[in-house]
Amino acid sequence: MKPPIVCFVGKSKVGKTTFLEKLIPELVSRGIRLGVIKHDVHGFEMDQPGKDTWRLRQAGAGRVVISSPLRFALIGLVEEELSLDEIVGRYLSDVDIVLAEGYKRSVKPKVEVARAERSCELLCAPEELVAVVSDFEVSPPCPHFGLDDAAGVANLLEERFLNTSPRELSLRVDGRDIPLKPFIHDMLIGAVRGLLSGLKEANGEQVELYIRSRR
Amino acid sequence: MKPPIVCFVGKSKVGKTTFLEKLIPELVSRGIRLGVIKHDVHGFEMDQPGKDTWRLRQAGAGRVVISSPLRFALIGLVEEELSLDEIVGRYLSDVDIVLAEGYKRSVKPKVEVARAERSCELLCAPEELVAVVSDFEVSPPCPHFGLDDAAGVANLLEERFLNTSPRELSLRVDGRDIPLKPFIHDMLIGAVRGLLSGLKEANGEQVELYIRSRR
Repeated sequence: MKPPIVCFVGKSKVGKTTFLEKLIPELVSRGIRLGVIKHDVHGFEMDQPGKDTWRLRQAGAGRVVISSPLRFALIGLVEEELSLDEIVGRYLSDVDIVLAEGYKRSVKPKVEVARAERSCELLCAPEELVAVVSDFEVSPPCPHFGLDDAAGVANLLEERFLNTSPRELSLRVDGRDIPLKPFIHDMLIGAVRGLLSGLKEANGEQVELYIRSRR
Repeated sequence: MKPPIVCFVGKSKVGKTTFLEKLIPELVSRGIRLGVIKHDVHGFEMDQPGKDTWRLRQAGAGRVVISSPLRFALIGLVEEELSLDEIVGRYLSDVDIVLAEGYKRSVKPKVEVARAERSCELLCAPEELVAVVSDFEVSPPCPHFGLDDAAGVANLLEERFLNTSPRELSLRVDGRDIPLKPFIHDMLIGAVRGLLSGLKEANGEQVELYIRSRR
């Protein structure tokens, strides 16, 4: 089964990559296997002139791989731009969810990132959007998150696309969110519920667990 | 069916990449679809610090793709180094032949590149080698080619690994090799043979075709 694809779109310079830099570690810390696709409409240079991989490509190799004990890279020429589905089918079929940056013309579900400083108008129609991430209130009736609310967007993606039980629990220490793997998360939920069920007054404040209200 | 894999090995700085830079266009000009794998034992940096793909990887994405209308690249972390067969099976299964640079410990057929200035001793035992490319004579009884003889090595690869009819013909204009696609090559062979069969004295010099002797 192909993993779901969610596109993070927005006008240029609104901070799409910046938001993904917050969202990615949030999802990874939950044990979710991620693929990320960056759309580049201008063409890009990946390797650096003079390096061996660059020389081999310049010599005319259509597909060049570089492989090391820790990393792997494949660079190829394409005759026609690959679609999101082709990329995911060929190269990312074994991840849990794919986040794409760009691809605003695709029909995949989208999260729009916006900043008031740049523009308060959205690119997408409300019906295309699963959420808006912005520093201003939005009128369409879809979930809205602040530019720093990676945990909120991660919760939404899990609920909507990953068929996992929603995160009902978060752990804060000194006011900072501590990411929890699904296993630990579920164990904690069970433990707290067990505790509370044994108490006449269900008061969990002293364990410093904050139960996030379900949206 | 998986494409054949041939490893180009040699001591460091003998000119493996330099030779591949000559061989790749020779093979491509013959209509052969190539995959190239560069082995990097030290780890490599592919994208550049600060670029979006780099930021997305730094954020923890295990697999990042960048896609444009002309090019495509995939960068991934691996838990264990991928074998040549894994790389070819997953990413290069649709090419005609794969040239690997490095992988001297693999059991794949090998071409050793050597330069007298660096060392006259070979890395590989004669039985591992399909050819030696060097600027000095070698004793093992395997085909030997000069450091500039990309056409000779391409002929050998075609004969040994591509089940195509060997190139018996090359076209030179003003002393320079003109690459020929297989279709044209075969047409020319047919035409020359036809011509020669009709002539009492089989003398083709005036058509400026040079028939390379089969090895």
